[in-house]
Amino acid sequence: MSEVYATRRARLRDRCQAGGSQSALISRPANVRYLAGAAPRGSVLLLGRTEDLLVCAGPPDDRPGSGRPDETLRRHHLPGAGGDPAVAAADLATGQGVDSLAVEEEHLTVSRHRAIRSVVPRLRLGDLAGAVEQLRVIKDEEEISCLRIGAEIADQALGELLESILVGRTERHLALELERRLVDHGADGPAFATSVGTGPNSGRRGHRPTDRRVEEGDFLSVCLGASYRGYRCEIGRTFVIGTSPADWQIELYDLVFAAQRAGRESLAPGAAYRDVDRAARQVLESAGHHEGLSSLTGHGVGLEIDEDPQLAPAAMGKLDACVPVTVEPGVHLPGRGGVRIDDTLVVRPEADGGPELLTITTKELLAL
Amino acid sequence: MSEVYATRRARLRDRCQAGGSQSALISRPANVRYLAGAAPRGSVLLLGRTEDLLVCAGPPDDRPGSGRPDETLRRHHLPGAGGDPAVAAADLATGQGVDSLAVEEEHLTVSRHRAIRSVVPRLRLGDLAGAVEQLRVIKDEEEISCLRIGAEIADQALGELLESILVGRTERHLALELERRLVDHGADGPAFATSVGTGPNSGRRGHRPTDRRVEEGDFLSVCLGASYRGYRCEIGRTFVIGTSPADWQIELYDLVFAAQRAGRESLAPGAAYRDVDRAARQVLESAGHHEGLSSLTGHGVGLEIDEDPQLAPAAMGKLDACVPVTVEPGVHLPGRGGVRIDDTLVVRPEADGGPELLTITTKELLAL
Repeated sequence: MSEVYATRRARLRDRCQAGGSQSALISRPANVRYLAGAAPRGSVLLLGRTEDLLVCAGPPDDRPGSGRPDETLRRHHLPGAGGDPAVAAADLATGQGVDSLAVEEEHLTVSRHRAIRSVVPRLRLGDLAGAVEQLRVIKDEEEISCLRIGAEIADQALGELLESILVGRTERHLALELERRLVDHGADGPAFATSVGTGPNSGRRGHRPTDRRVEEGDFLSVCLGASYRGYRCEIGRTFVIGTSPADWQIELYDLVFAAQRAGRESLAPGAAYRDVDRAARQVLESAGHHEGLSSLTGHGVGLEIDEDPQLAPAAMGKLDACVPVTVEPGVHLPGRGGVRIDDTLVVRPEADGGPELLTITTKELLAL
Repeated sequence: MSEVYATRRARLRDRCQAGGSQSALISRPANVRYLAGAAPRGSVLLLGRTEDLLVCAGPPDDRPGSGRPDETLRRHHLPGAGGDPAVAAADLATGQGVDSLAVEEEHLTVSRHRAIRSVVPRLRLGDLAGAVEQLRVIKDEEEISCLRIGAEIADQALGELLESILVGRTERHLALELERRLVDHGADGPAFATSVGTGPNSGRRGHRPTDRRVEEGDFLSVCLGASYRGYRCEIGRTFVIGTSPADWQIELYDLVFAAQRAGRESLAPGAAYRDVDRAARQVLESAGHHEGLSSLTGHGVGLEIDEDPQLAPAAMGKLDACVPVTVEPGVHLPGRGGVRIDDTLVVRPEADGGPELLTITTKELLAL
């Protein structure tokens, strides 16, 4: 695996130098992990002129992080607490004869930036401007394989839940049980806080589980994901509780399903982000749902659950092959509830069979 | 409750104006919640000249946050996605005729700071310099009562675990079960990622649960906490698995217990942070444990699990009454394991009975 990380760092170094910086300081944990294999808590990565260094906040093992580290990368440990690895890294960069350093201005705080300037005032500070996030958009097959396993785990956890009795249980308990099952099946943990919404809470994006209990006739929407070797996927489904859904429930479900299918079918290398969003959104809007629609229809996933690209009306850019994204339109009717259907897919060229669906749980409207 | 938040904002306003700023922009979520009762995701609080405003990233309910909001505080919702509430708040401040704004430089990123400067270039930007964090150090009785309930919940969850069969179960499963029990007993959720360490992993601060199974003769250390109405407490205990602990285990346990007691007994209004640390640390050091000791002996708790003050060798400052802190010394012997004992206490004057112990689970060495 070490070569993978070294190759990623080499690509970033090329971008940096093209941008006029001799070195780079990476502080955002997911970016550190992407480039170094691991991100011990508080650590930063220096992409130096003569050597790359993982600069850690304390002695080895004092602040365990996650991931399998790149063993070829030398670590520099600050003694004890108190020191800022970002400042230490900038100092080490000047020790390598560097006069310019690109930092992550979207992650680094004003205080830390100021501290670096005061310790190494002659170092010219630039901005990495999301260069690592851009590298992360297109995944290699190893990364996709982690996402695929994570999606399988999430499918399994969800499938088991559907076999159990649901009426009378609270949103919170269902969410916790799903998270336990994710870990049972080999996840590092949940990819994000599991969302379970019942009745009037169903269909709300990012709904935090409450003590409301599942009742006959409810919509039940669930959104969960597994983190597997750091890679995070997402699946969302909506069910109906009881023997037969009401007409309005069938109608709303069919509508959201149609929107989600339209979004999925528009995924292709070269498709504009906004066109994918529009494909799904216009199905909902043409049925009169304008208010309260989520600001996005989907987003990239990977080492973070919410990565580039954003599939949203004003998003700029086009999809590439090997970009995993969610497609997750939904409608929520205040006071009544709603429907949300969410898959993780990998963009693939049509010659390879089109978008690869990672989350394979059925999207039929199940009555439980 | 609204008066509580208004009073807190008034105190912060006084500090700001004393520091030469007419208004303040609060972006750190725990600080927003402290001053506004709730922190919808992405929201910031503007402490304005004519009116305070909670500036939210999207329409109401698009990004549910947590906490019970101050209903007297007006909300300003940015339409749809894309806008940065911090930039919008700075713009609103100038609309109120303000010419200086203090921001949280320790939280705000360089990019956001730059965006504010470019949108409202005439606004003079200052630094709040941790003013809200300082206000948060001393808790009122309402806040302490939330911590007390959280500690009771954690004690209950831990107590139930001890009654179950432990041998053969993995660290991960024990951690998940503890988290489920926290929620069963009314927690919002875990206060932080529950740590369970067995055998060689025992006694490590912040150990992430692995698939190692509990074995006869192991030390088992557990650290967990409940979040209750946003307030986070912490308890850590170490047990021995099997009928009779080995001599080295008893010896190490007694030592850490003595250190922890020394730390607890040194908690008093007026005690220097570093003296509390030294009280506990010197017990461990005088027994020859220097290497690998944690860089701190304890820390404040509240809306975040790791708040000011830090009880550490180089910490500056003195304890006040009504400051809740952890006391959590530990020793970890590489390859063998170790002991960690962690309580949450509230500093109280001797006239009121001295430090109030919130986490009351026994600290005898239990053989399970």
